Amino acid sequence: MQVRPSEAGKTAARPFRFPVRVYYEDTDAAGVVYYANYLKFMERARTEWLAAIGFPLAAFEREHGVVFVVHRCEIDFRGPARLNDTLDVTVEPEFRGATRLVARQAVCRGDAVLTDARVTLACVDSARWRPVRIPAPLAARMEIPA
Amino acid sequence: MQVRPSEAGKTAARPFRFPVRVYYEDTDAAGVVYYANYLKFMERARTEWLAAIGFPLAAFEREHGVVFVVHRCEIDFRGPARLNDTLDVTVEPEFRGATRLVARQAVCRGDAVLTDARVTLACVDSARWRPVRIPAPLAARMEIPA
Amino acid sequence: MQVRPSEAGKTAARPFRFPVRVYYEDTDAAGVVYYANYLKFMERARTEWLAAIGFPLAAFEREHGVVFVVHRCEIDFRGPARLNDTLDVTVEPEFRGATRLVARQAVCRGDAVLTDARVTLACVDSARWRPVRIPAPLAARMEIPA
Amino acid sequence: MQVRPSEAGKTAARPFRFPVRVYYEDTDAAGVVYYANYLKFMERARTEWLAAIGFPLAAFEREHGVVFVVHRCEIDFRGPARLNDTLDVTVEPEFRGATRLVARQAVCRGDAVLTDARVTLACVDSARWRPVRIPAPLAARMEIPA
Repeated sequence: MQVRPSEAGKTAARPFRFPVRVYYEDTDAAGVVYYANYLKFMERARTEWLAAIGFPLAAFEREHGVVFVVHRCEIDFRGPARLNDTLDVTVEPEFRGATRLVARQAVCRGDAVLTDARVTLACVDSARWRPVRIPAPLAARMEIPA
Repeated sequence: MQVRPSEAGKTAARPFRFPVRVYYEDTDAAGVVYYANYLKFMERARTEWLAAIGFPLAAFEREHGVVFVVHRCEIDFRGPARLNDTLDVTVEPEFRGATRLVARQAVCRGDAVLTDARVTLACVDSARWRPVRIPAPLAARMEIPA
Repeated sequence: MQVRPSEAGKTAARPFRFPVRVYYEDTDAAGVVYYANYLKFMERARTEWLAAIGFPLAAFEREHGVVFVVHRCEIDFRGPARLNDTLDVTVEPEFRGATRLVARQAVCRGDAVLTDARVTLACVDSARWRPVRIPAPLAARMEIPA
Repeated sequence: MQVRPSEAGKTAARPFRFPVRVYYEDTDAAGVVYYANYLKFMERARTEWLAAIGFPLAAFEREHGVVFVVHRCEIDFRGPARLNDTLDVTVEPEFRGATRLVARQAVCRGDAVLTDARVTLACVDSARWRPVRIPAPLAARMEIPA
């Protein structure tokens, strides 16, 4: 497939990357990052990605009355991160529906992918916890074909 | 001070004890329980103590519109707890004021006190987060001279 | 496939269930259990299941020099657990290979399945973190056809 | 008390500050940062302070065979931090003995001190977990009169 320069640029801009340092709090007695904590790292990166495209958490719920909740997560743990590592956590949206969003995420140390995941997020009404449409201004900023 | 048998008995009945098992999630790369996690264990024990004297968390806020928040904590880490330990976490209220409560707590493995703390809790209005009087029915159940 | 009564009984005996109480530490500002914490609940239940079939964590690494690490997790978040809920966390091994184990797990409140997952565990050498065969005495106790 | 310019300068240079963003993982169902998590923020800041004066965690144990463990913590919770807050966590060493260090720490939002603590750290042999002298090169970098 031929890629036009403008599209190539867009692709190169992705995925979003967010650095995370590993502290004692993140590790366990096996000397590695505790498995559930990779999900914390991934949520930090999603939060920063949303802020980077114009939707900081605080404004999000206040202005639109919605929150994103994780509906499904498929995560592969390929290699351990360790104390004091500096990791990059990536976010790459791959599908956007009316009420949900699927993102690819990875936790990397340099070129090595330690953990990667496909995360399905549902947009829900923050009061009743029911699926609602992703607000149009946010959907527009996500740049993913529905 | 002379203690009457019935009072001695009451004292002996205290402190309240709650068992906690140490899992991987509680430990860190030094091979021991991560220091902040002792505060989690202590809150679990306080929650169970309140439930044991008739004030489960859910009812507490719904019926009285108040929550207890920790105002101050002095905690000594005397020895490490390790993976798979079974610990006892104790709660012993030592002072009750109009709006606050001071409790002594310890995390023990058998006879060894691994960590002990004095925790000051404030009773606050759950809506405005301001100090309010400890509800009378709860104060009555605490059996500590104000 | 026809099931003989004795086998039906065995099946009914499973899955293993472990109770978990939701404390403040488990919840987040959305008022529900934070998504990564379901993985903590699931690991507690796996640890207790292993202990129940004769393999407490401490003995496990000391005697066999192996640990189980999570290789993959597919988890569906179907409904939120909340503060003070008492949950049941289940473990049901569904496949055992030479070096890995796949378990179905669920977090339930009464009859409602709030979260369920398929978790793939690898048996690794605790020194070099390489896959090794599940020790025969443990494999024998798992009662799952390889 | 009169302060000479050179001392004023030194004082102004301190304390060390480290920024922390509040994510969902840090909060609880009361809508605020869970109390034990301030201790995580404080340890992140101590780790970054040690790295800033030349002692990154990894090198520390490898080269000197020692780790710092928290022996005592007195912490006052003055006001709640909330989701999406950007906080500054400070570290100001106030006393250095042969084997221990006392630091003042605070968690601030702008000019408001939300939590402050006095933390006593012991330098221990990482193998036997016994108190040992703070390595001379590190002590020299701390610039606190013993």
